[in-house]
Order: sequence, then C-alpha cells, then structure tokens
Amino acid sequence: AIYPSSSPFLTLHAVRQWSNVPFFTVPLARAHGKSFAHRSELRQAKRIVVKLGSAVVTRGDECGLALGRLASIVEQVAVLQNQGREMMIVTSGAVAFGKQRLRHEILLSQSVRQALHSGQNQLKDMSLPVLEARACAAAGQRLYDSPPGSDDAKLLDTFYPGDQHSITYGTKSRVGIGGMEAKVKAALWALQGGTSVVIANGTHPKVTGHVITDIVEGKKVGTFFSEVKPAGPTVEQQTEMARSAGRTLASLEPEQRSDIICTLADLLTERKDEILSANKKDMEHAVSRLSPAMLKRLSLSSSKLNSLSIGLRQIAVSSQDSVGRVLRRTRVANKLELEQITVPIGVLLVIFESRPDCLPQVSALAIASGNALLLKGGKEAANTNRILHELTQEALSIHGVKDAIQLVSTREEVEDLCRLEKMIDLIIPRGSSQLVRDIQRAAKSIPVLGHSEGICHVYVDHEASVDKAIKIIRDSKCDYPAACNAMETLLVHRDLLRTPLFDQIIDMLRTEHVKIHAGPKFASYLTFSPSEVKSLRTEYGDLECCIEVVDSMLEAVDHIHKYGSSHTDVIVTENEDTAEQFLQQLDSACVFWNASSRFADGYRFGLGAEVGISTARIHARGPVGLEGLLTTKWVLRGEGHTAADFSEQGSMTYLHENLPVAQVLPGCRTTS
Amino acid sequence: AIYPSSSPFLTLHAVRQWSNVPFFTVPLARAHGKSFAHRSELRQAKRIVVKLGSAVVTRGDECGLALGRLASIVEQVAVLQNQGREMMIVTSGAVAFGKQRLRHEILLSQSVRQALHSGQNQLKDMSLPVLEARACAAAGQRLYDSPPGSDDAKLLDTFYPGDQHSITYGTKSRVGIGGMEAKVKAALWALQGGTSVVIANGTHPKVTGHVITDIVEGKKVGTFFSEVKPAGPTVEQQTEMARSAGRTLASLEPEQRSDIICTLADLLTERKDEILSANKKDMEHAVSRLSPAMLKRLSLSSSKLNSLSIGLRQIAVSSQDSVGRVLRRTRVANKLELEQITVPIGVLLVIFESRPDCLPQVSALAIASGNALLLKGGKEAANTNRILHELTQEALSIHGVKDAIQLVSTREEVEDLCRLEKMIDLIIPRGSSQLVRDIQRAAKSIPVLGHSEGICHVYVDHEASVDKAIKIIRDSKCDYPAACNAMETLLVHRDLLRTPLFDQIIDMLRTEHVKIHAGPKFASYLTFSPSEVKSLRTEYGDLECCIEVVDSMLEAVDHIHKYGSSHTDVIVTENEDTAEQFLQQLDSACVFWNASSRFADGYRFGLGAEVGISTARIHARGPVGLEGLLTTKWVLRGEGHTAADFSEQGSMTYLHENLPVAQVLPGCRTTS
Repeated sequence: AIYPSSSPFLTLHAVRQWSNVPFFTVPLARAHGKSFAHRSELRQAKRIVVKLGSAVVTRGDECGLALGRLASIVEQVAVLQNQGREMMIVTSGAVAFGKQRLRHEILLSQSVRQALHSGQNQLKDMSLPVLEARACAAAGQRLYDSPPGSDDAKLLDTFYPGDQHSITYGTKSRVGIGGMEAKVKAALWALQGGTSVVIANGTHPKVTGHVITDIVEGKKVGTFFSEVKPAGPTVEQQTEMARSAGRTLASLEPEQRSDIICTLADLLTERKDEILSANKKDMEHAVSRLSPAMLKRLSLSSSKLNSLSIGLRQIAVSSQDSVGRVLRRTRVANKLELEQITVPIGVLLVIFESRPDCLPQVSALAIASGNALLLKGGKEAANTNRILHELTQEALSIHGVKDAIQLVSTREEVEDLCRLEKMIDLIIPRGSSQLVRDIQRAAKSIPVLGHSEGICHVYVDHEASVDKAIKIIRDSKCDYPAACNAMETLLVHRDLLRTPLFDQIIDMLRTEHVKIHAGPKFASYLTFSPSEVKSLRTEYGDLECCIEVVDSMLEAVDHIHKYGSSHTDVIVTENEDTAEQFLQQLDSACVFWNASSRFADGYRFGLGAEVGISTARIHARGPVGLEGLLTTKWVLRGEGHTAADFSEQGSMTYLHENLPVAQVLPGCRTTS
Repeated sequence: AIYPSSSPFLTLHAVRQWSNVPFFTVPLARAHGKSFAHRSELRQAKRIVVKLGSAVVTRGDECGLALGRLASIVEQVAVLQNQGREMMIVTSGAVAFGKQRLRHEILLSQSVRQALHSGQNQLKDMSLPVLEARACAAAGQRLYDSPPGSDDAKLLDTFYPGDQHSITYGTKSRVGIGGMEAKVKAALWALQGGTSVVIANGTHPKVTGHVITDIVEGKKVGTFFSEVKPAGPTVEQQTEMARSAGRTLASLEPEQRSDIICTLADLLTERKDEILSANKKDMEHAVSRLSPAMLKRLSLSSSKLNSLSIGLRQIAVSSQDSVGRVLRRTRVANKLELEQITVPIGVLLVIFESRPDCLPQVSALAIASGNALLLKGGKEAANTNRILHELTQEALSIHGVKDAIQLVSTREEVEDLCRLEKMIDLIIPRGSSQLVRDIQRAAKSIPVLGHSEGICHVYVDHEASVDKAIKIIRDSKCDYPAACNAMETLLVHRDLLRTPLFDQIIDMLRTEHVKIHAGPKFASYLTFSPSEVKSLRTEYGDLECCIEVVDSMLEAVDHIHKYGSSHTDVIVTENEDTAEQFLQQLDSACVFWNASSRFADGYRFGLGAEVGISTARIHARGPVGLEGLLTTKWVLRGEGHTAADFSEQGSMTYLHENLPVAQVLPGCRTTS
C-alpha cells in the first residue's frame, strides 16, 4: 500500500524472512490521504505491498514454485527496501497461497535432505484431495471480502503483478477463486481507502526482472488504478486528436497555413506581458537549481520575442510552396499521368529541453509543413511552455485546427513516448547529445531525426594559405565551442611541423585559451608534448581540441572516416585538385573547402528555419529545413487503365515521358 | 561436450537432481571426431556440458546462490534435454563450487526450519577461515589440470557461461584460481579433444533467460572456439572489405560504373552454360522439397538470362547521372558557394529468398548507385548464387572494385546480420511479407526499406462509370492476386447496392472465381450474406476479397485510414471534384483515380528497375528506384570565410541566392 502518511505500519523485510511470517493476522494501520493521481508520483511511495498472483508464484507446468521469477521479484523488492521504502510481499491466488502454506508446514517439519530428495513431486502429490481448495483459499479470501478501509484490506494495495492478459481474456485461475475480477474489485476497494494500485503482468520473461522497479519509477507498465481523474486526455488520445486535426491542417490552402503562422507571430508580441510573466515564474523557480548557462536559455525577453516573431514570418513565407509541390510528372501512357507530390510526414514528436522559444519555432515549422505535432518540453519551462502553447492553439483555431499541436504533460516519460509506434511517425529531439542518445536508444521502431555527436575536423594541407588557415581554425574552434559544428580535431600535414604557419596556429590557439591535446603521432614528433588524447574520437564542446599529424590528404580522409562522426569536415588548401579529391572522397554530411565548419547550419545554408542537423544516411542529411518534414505520395490519374492493357495481348504501351514541372528548386528559397 | 559420436556418456538430468550428484568422480568416455567449424552446426550437438562460472552461480552481493539465474539456466537445460540431447551442468569457479558443496553438507544436516531461520547470514559467515579456499578449490582445480583428451577434461567442453568481460578485462575471480585464462586454456584443450566450446556471459539480466538455448540455435552469443578454421572471412570482415571497395566504386567515373554493369550483362549470356548447370544442381536438390511455385522462382533459363541481361543494360544507362548529381546550388555569400549533391548511402544489405535472378539485378542497382553491397540469398539457390556472384565480382574487377559486393554465407543468421549496426546503413528485404516483418523486428538500429503488407482498396463511387469500375476491379484483384498491389477490399457507395452496376461487379467476381467476404455493414444489407470477414484488415493474397459498403467518399477515406496499410488505394468515379478530394485527403503512398492498383510498381511508374515498394513515411515512399539508394551531401567552397565575418561586427552579409542546376528531374528518366 502506498500511504503518503507516516502512520505506524508493519514493516516486512520480505527479502530476509518472506516465507513464514504470519502477516495477515497482524492488525494494520489505516491509510490516510488520497491515492496518487499519476504514475510519476509513485516514486514518492513510502510503503508498498507487492501481491503475487498464483501464476506468478507457481510454474506454468505445475511443477512447483517458479524459483527464477520469485528470486528476481525478491531482488527488486530488496532494491526498493534499500531505498528506504517499507515493502511487503503477499503471495496470493488465494488457493495457491493457502496450499503453499500448508505444504510449507509439512515441508518445514522434514529434514533438508529429505525435502530435497523427495523434490517437487511429493509436493505436487499433495493436491486438492489432500489440501482442499476452499480450505486453502480461506485465508486469502478474507482479503477480498474485507470492507474497504478495514485493516486487512490494506494488504492488497498498490502492486499486484497478476497476469494482465486476464483483464481481457478472463481469469486463468484454475480453481475459480480470486481471478482478475476479484483483483480489480480489490483494487477499487483499495483505491477508496486512499491507495494507488497497479496491476501488471508478472510472468513475462522479458520484464520479470524489472517490472516492479519499473512501476515505481513511473514507467507505463500494466494498468494504473487511480481514484483521482487525470486532468486532461491521455497522450494516446492527444496523439489521435493531433493526427485527425493534422489531416485537416494538411488539406488547408497554403495561404491558410501561412495565415496561422502570421497570427501566432502577432500573438507573440501582442501577448508579450502574459508570456513574460509566465517566464518570470519559471525563472524564479529555476534560479537556485539551474546553471547560469541554462538560466540564460530558459529566459525570454521582449527582444527575444520580437526576433522570434520575425523568424515566424519568414517561415510563413516559405510555407507557401511546401506541401503539395509537384516534384515529378510522367506521362505513363496515353491519358495516364503520374505525379509525385510532397505531403506531410504525419505526426511529429518534438522533445526539447529548457529553451521555450523552441516551442513557437517548431510549431511554425509543423504548421508550414502540414504536420501534426506533439510537443514535450522541459519541466523547468512548464509555465512558459503552457502559455506559448495556448497562443499556438489560439492561432490554429482561426482555421479550425486547434488540436493539431498538442503539449504533452511534463509528467510523461520520454521513454514511454518513444514507444508510441504506429501513432508517431518521426521523433525530433532538440537538446543535449545525451538527450538525443537516450531517445535513439528508446525509440526502437520510430525514426529519430538528429545527431548525437559532432566530431568535426579541420585538415590543414601543406599547400594551405596561412591567413585562411588561421582564420578558419579560430572560427571553427572559438566562435561557439559548445556547438555541434565546432572543430574538435585539427589535422595538420606533416610538412607543416616546425614551419612558421604551424607556430602561428599554436600561438593563436594559446591566445584564445584553447587547451591542446596531442594525438599519438603528433606527440611522437615533440620533445615536450601536451597531454596525450584519451581518445581521438572526443567531442570536447569547449575551448579544447586535439591536434594530430597526418602524412597526406588521403591519410586525413582515412583518419576522419575512422574517428569522425560524419557531421562536418573542412580542408584548408590552395590546391584545387587536392581540395576536390577531399570533397569527393570524404563521406560526411557536410564537406567544406576553405570555409569554417560553423557554416553547417540551416539558416547559414539558406534553408530558412532549421529543424536540426542529421547525420543519418537516409531521409534528410546535414542541416534540415522544412524539406525534412515532408515526404511524397504518388498520384496517378487514368481513364480506366489496367495493367492487363499493357500485357503482350494488350492494346497499350508504356510511354514514360517526362513532363515539365514548375521550376522551384526543392525546398530552396531565400530567407530574406 | 559436443560429441558427434554416440559413445556411452553419463547423462545428467540436471533439472531434477542437480545439487548433489558426485559427477566428477565418474569416468567419462573419450570424444571422437572433429569439433564443429561453425556455430550453425551447434544445432546438431548431441551432448552438451554447461559449465557455470562462480559469478554465474553466486550473487553479486555475495549473499549466496543466484537463485533466479540458476533456475532459468536449469530451465533452458531442461528444454535442450527434452529435445533429446544429453545435458550436463557443471558448477564451477573452483572455490565457489567447493565452498558451496561444503556449505551444502552443513546445510543438509540441519532441519528446514532451522536452515530458513538462520538464512544466508549464517552461510555467509562460513567464509574462508572455516572453508579454506584451497580446500574448496581442490576438486574444481582438478578439471583445469587434467591433460587434454583425458576423461575428466571432457567436462569442460562446449558451453561455458562465464563472465565474458573477463576476456578483455582480466579475471574477476576473487581467489585467483580458475579465471578467464584458465577457461580459455581449458577451451583450447577441449578443442584438441575434438569438441567445440562457447564462452558467453552468463550474468547479463537481459540474456540470462535464453543464453544457452540461443547458443545452441547458432546465434552469435559469446565467443565460439573452433579448431577448424572458417572457410572465408567473417561477415564483419566482408562488410569492411565491401565498405572500403565501395568508396572506390563511388569515386569512379559514371562511365566506369556503367561499364561494370554492361560487363556483367555480357557475362550473364556468355557464361550461360555455367550458370544453368549450377542452377540445375539447385533444382535437383530442391525438387522434392519446394512447392511448384517456389521451384518456378528458383529456376533459370536461357531466356530468363537474356531478359535479365537486357534489364541490366537499362540500369547501366540510368546509372550515368545518379551519383554526384547536383540537386541544389546556392550562393551563400560572395565567393561562398554551396552545392547539395547525391551520394551513395554506404553499405546495403539485401536479403532475398529463392529467386536467384535477384542477385545480378540488385548488384547492378548497387553498382549504379555507387553503394557497397552484402547479399544474403536463400540456401536453396546456393549454387546459382555462387556462380552469379563470381561473375559479378569478375565484372567489378575491371575497375579494381571486386570486393564492393560480397556474398554472405548461407550459414549466417539473418538476425545476426540485422545486428551489424554502424557497419550496415540500410537493409532491403526482398521476399515474403513474413521475411520483411522478421527483419523489421530484428533490425533495431538499422533502417529497413520495404513494406510488410499491402492492403489495397478500390472505392467505387456512386458516380462511377460501369465499364471502368468492372475493368479496374477485375485487374486490381485478378491480374496477379498474390502481388502486394492487388486489391484486398472493395468499397462500394451505398447508392450502388441493388443497381445493375453492382450486380455486374458481383457477376464478374464470380466468373473470375473470386471468393467474396462481406464486411459487417454490407452483410447487414443482405438477406443472405456471404461469410462475414474476420477482420477488415486482411491481406488475402489470393482470389479472395472483402466487400464493404460506405455512405460516402469521405467514409471510404476514413475506412482506408483505419484498415488500410497506406500502400495503394483507388477511386473509381466520373466526378472530378470527388476524385481530387479523395486523392488529396487519402494518406497513402499511392493514390489512383480510375486506374488499376496494379500500376503501383517501379517499372510501370517509369523508374527503371525497382528496389522495392516502401510504405515508410521517411526517406523513400511508394515504388523505389535508384533514387532510394542515394542520399545527399553538402559541399561548400569558400575562400577562408568564417561565421564571424557575418556577425554584427563582420564585413559580410548572406546572399542566399539560388543558382541554376542542370535540368534533370530527380531520378526521372525514360527506361527505353
């Protein structure tokens, strides 16, 4: 039972003495307070009773106790106990429980050698004729019969790893006592007594080892019973609402989508006071908890809102020709014409950290591309996100598609959201590389657009211009060292060692306070070397970098293939042939000649707003603009054409004639 | 021990009596024959000894036996035993084992109640001073010391779930006896005696429940020791070779890639006799095992090779402008120019069933797109695939990229290949929808291009032309019922019921022997209805279909969104407004107006050769040609430009001017 109060309660140290404690004869204290409203609150649970259904306790083949399962359950309970919770295990399935007790009584009077020798067979033989079912059940049955709020009923609270399939398929109980109906009834009674209940499958081999700890961590395992109605729709309902309204959004005229974005841009400035006051609340709450850098990202200002509003108007412009653009037209045969057109991807899930200005930006991109959107922001920006989302829905309402963008409760676990396959078409994480990695791991069957690391290289060729090399290295490393497109490793051609250019590079890095680590080869050239790198595949994200020496441009390419992250890599050289070979051979999303790695960015590329930078090799690669939020569909218009018409006996032949399409370069438009 | 012979051997029924059998005093028979050369042969193992390291047997917190782990291991051994194998469990970690035995002896003489009451604490107290380490170890140590081939040494054979991390990080054994070095030594000795050995991690909670059965099924778990050297490189080595040669392939001139494909086309006809004789071998072997339909797919003929060769020449033509095509050019600023160009995806894995003609086709597509390729064909076509692959490598050799296409051994498990993340960039399954589903499940972090089902609809509007409706329904259902683009559900507007058109449709379907199932609404309109459908989401793949009634075009769209697979859906109507609404609102990869669903096909669309049809929503959608095997990279050419140049204090401004690109429609070219 989860009792938020601290009233006196029997503490069972179940791991150490779980087999023969006569717990249901001991009077228990009453519960106080309300049950939890949401799973995420289960972490606060102080006292937890784990009740095991008979199918959890016993083996599927009826050959006695499911030792492996029991042991792993006991291990989990021990973990929770060691966190300072008060834990109790109740074995149930009234009959199995009673039977087990009676069997135990017989067993306990044997010697160990005798018991092991006779094995389970003997125990199994002690079946119903010997241990009469109703007699066995009597004790357990008392639990179900006790009125809510009574002392005994408390035993049933909270965790109840029964066989969840029984909810739909009826009880699997072999003797018809207990079963799922009784479990649900008991759960409801427990709820009335103020405790929360979760019923989960306790027999699935893949989850048995962590089902209980998962539930306490708030994960969506099994069914959560709560007396308190959740404040809004579930995330599944939100997704359905978003998909449905999203389809309407996609079928609007481009001008209407543009309208919505402009309205949102207006609201950001008109309702500035409301936004800033919500943001002030978040800041006040965060000031003692977040680092100065994080606080800066969290804070909004009048001028931030203004430039946000200007950015939105640019997206409104580019939204005009994004959805429904014809990419290809083919005359397949006489009066049979094929078009490939752009369409939205469907439902996007964008998970972003701290920066609340992300919300209107991403919303505008989703509206422009006709996609439905689920937004999941950080807890620390909850108030700001709420008002920004309200304004977004207000803007969407002008064309009746309010529900196309949903704000997901901060209580939802990212991991659970990543499991909503078939409901969500693409996940876009916007935040730390740790966030991206976590999501890539959790989202098994939903594609994730993003990159988890940016290990960018600048290779200075022996034919490099001194000025360009210095400028580019400084900018690539120092302009914004925390960015994913900042340089992490500087590769230098061997011939440059002990030249003035090399000394100038080192001087510049020292002046800029860049900490230098030496690659193994570089270190071997030096009498006194800086600290050697731990790994050539390191993203410092700070005023630090690695320097390594290579013998040739080709060795630089090999090095980057081996240690890079295929994000952005640069060559500095005056030799065009060398440069073109580098650009051709290097297999990265962005390859630059005599330009800073910092140009790898949607805005700088002229893509307008940026969704993110992808290092994936399918769909979108490199900086991703509106394009990345679109897919295509094929539209064929005929006059009763059939495939049989084109068979050897048929009357028609394929023409496959390319027809002209409107001359808009895909997704390419100026942003000014 | 895996003894291919059937010499007499002690059989331990470990599940029932695994705790107190004095097994290492019993003389064991010698092994005969060679150890297995490959994991896939482990399925044939007759006798298996499972030896458990001390970390597997005991809990991490030193609080006694790891009951959960032991129970699940015993359960797996029982499964293998019940398959008719002779199984033996050896508990080891010499010290832990001996200690356990001595503790058991003490325990066995207590009463059960006494034992449970004292709990593990007492046992833990019986530590080294009481149970002296060397004494405990003595028995286990004998195993390690026994010379190879001797009777006792056999105990160590085969399965050895120790802590695999120890291989790299040294032994974790607390007393320094046994440990990984000794395990490997023992493994090598066992090998010399003719038995195979696998050392795997036995403590990882996610695999403990199936590690032993997985190994016996040939899965790549742990380290496989074999005396017999594998015939060729490992699949990991093959992948590396392919990636490296693939990079060279991608950097060839388009004419050279086209050259290679034409050479392969020549070889298919020049070396016809060799190919057909290999194919004959496969056919002879398959004739008694495969269905007539499967045999037909397996068989090659002179004319099949001829048309294959013609197809390849078409791919050679379209390969000319696939890699390195400029999709977009932008003048970012003065003398700073950006290009987005097409590049290969990297390393493809194509898994295909029975049809060997798939091999040269897919190879040609990979060559045309500059991708490296791993091919995994079916066992039944092994001889044909081998010669076709040899010819492919012969063709690749003319430009020094022989290794870019690798044929993976038929012994490799598809599931293992799907786990080669970071080595393979895209998996393309070509075969049954079951194959596709299996691969989608197995390939967790590698994208899969394909579709597992095609539930295509034809909606006949109340304003449909009779002739077109009949033609399109017949073609969509009957032209090739097993195809993924065949109609599965016919949706009919309510107003058509009891009209001559409706009777004509039913008559036609009867004439064509199409079995009709009624949707619930359709059934409710009829006095005598055909059998009601089990599910409206059914892919019959045969001369069967479902008929359902809808009230309107919009209801048809809703029905298709709910029950369809977003593959291909058709409207038959003379009303252009209705048609355009359907085409706009329906969210499928292919949406057709007055044309048969059978047109959803790369060749018919004019894409040239087809890689497959994708129902994914990112990357490629619908029929996929060469396009789907390409991604892009961004090439930026500057003269020392830095991001700082564009800051407020900088001297430059962004131009973002679109520059013209060569007028080739993306991937769109005629195939004749």
